[in-house]
Amino acid sequence: MKILAIDTSTAMATVAIADGEKIIAESQFSADRTLSSRLIPEIKRILVIAGWAVADIDLFAASIGPGSFTGVRGGVATMQGLALAAGKPCAGFSSLTLLSMNFSLSSRLVCPMLDARKSEVYAALYDCSTSIPSPVINDCVMPPDSFLDQLRQTTDKQVIFAGEGALRYRDLIAGRMADRAIFAPFPLNPSRAAHGATLALELFESGDCFAPSRLLPVYLRASDAEINRSSKLRAFNP
Amino acid sequence: MKILAIDTSTAMATVAIADGEKIIAESQFSADRTLSSRLIPEIKRILVIAGWAVADIDLFAASIGPGSFTGVRGGVATMQGLALAAGKPCAGFSSLTLLSMNFSLSSRLVCPMLDARKSEVYAALYDCSTSIPSPVINDCVMPPDSFLDQLRQTTDKQVIFAGEGALRYRDLIAGRMADRAIFAPFPLNPSRAAHGATLALELFESGDCFAPSRLLPVYLRASDAEINRSSKLRAFNP
Repeated sequence: MKILAIDTSTAMATVAIADGEKIIAESQFSADRTLSSRLIPEIKRILVIAGWAVADIDLFAASIGPGSFTGVRGGVATMQGLALAAGKPCAGFSSLTLLSMNFSLSSRLVCPMLDARKSEVYAALYDCSTSIPSPVINDCVMPPDSFLDQLRQTTDKQVIFAGEGALRYRDLIAGRMADRAIFAPFPLNPSRAAHGATLALELFESGDCFAPSRLLPVYLRASDAEINRSSKLRAFNP
Repeated sequence: MKILAIDTSTAMATVAIADGEKIIAESQFSADRTLSSRLIPEIKRILVIAGWAVADIDLFAASIGPGSFTGVRGGVATMQGLALAAGKPCAGFSSLTLLSMNFSLSSRLVCPMLDARKSEVYAALYDCSTSIPSPVINDCVMPPDSFLDQLRQTTDKQVIFAGEGALRYRDLIAGRMADRAIFAPFPLNPSRAAHGATLALELFESGDCFAPSRLLPVYLRASDAEINRSSKLRAFNP
């Protein structure tokens, strides 16, 4: 089974192709404000390495968020288009699940944390002791100190913090968690699409793949555009 | 400090650039028999992502083996050439240390294992509990069952096995280690050059960088060419 997996939910995009349980090529690249011009060329480039055409791909797997609205939307739309053209199914996975897999087989709980702007984080807590992580605290969006309160009520053990949100709020986390916070070595802060291939295989085996039109983003909160529209509607219908 | 790090010791090559403790771009690609035509274009491609020229790189870091003789030699020669042109220093690291870093912060010992052909493996045992792994069994080359004997005498705990050698000798390892062997999830079998940036920074800080001409491969055993030459010399001088 040939898989294309991507994650475009952060400033660091990642693309991978796998043939069953073998990674053929993978890349991570800083894509801040350049994703739309870089994503398709990058997919084409790694397909060339494998000698595959888009039509050869059996499953198109993408991170459906949470993360950058524009990034997630762009990634999902690209995969919908490719999958539709190839006549193949899609699978979606959480960007936070993917990030936590940088610590696969870890005996410590893992907290993937992304910057959600507006003084909030997208965060979760995962048990990564097996190859497919299981959530201990589900993906959520909230101010980092509220999340750390919840985390401290959930476990009194050491926790690994990873991701751009953990970098941004490192001082706050260290202050609240003291020696229970372990920070990821810097190469383990960006996510890897190769782990998306693991998730895609699992989703395929459990029957959780679907038509491209059903691959939909999970933003966890309303976008600015929706908030603005809703407040304008309220102004019209007070 | 701008770093270019590569590992070309296996069939899966990897290239990364980092600006201090921030990965800008990284890639892994199947390079079996195509490394010489792919390595330089790949380095050029990721430099474009960062907007850097070769002259901007401050440190050129490469895996010096063990692994494929041709792969290691090609990678080292490429980095020597680039560093010489840029007038900047080089740093070298073990391909097995690099591979073990796929399990950074692991509380279990990690056994990176590469296929050395001739029914042997390149292998080692590392404590990866901190960001820079420390060797428990040094890098060596021997038949896999001899290595497993040594490993069983060294620890009675669970060990994580990773790398193409662990894939090739999986049945043997499982038979000898029983439930003490834990095998890497498949995306964690190839090495990542991003971890080479961590090693490069550490080598730089400890003063272990040097002129390009001093970046030399560590093969752990003689090449076929050397063995053949030596046996011919013996035939001439019995």
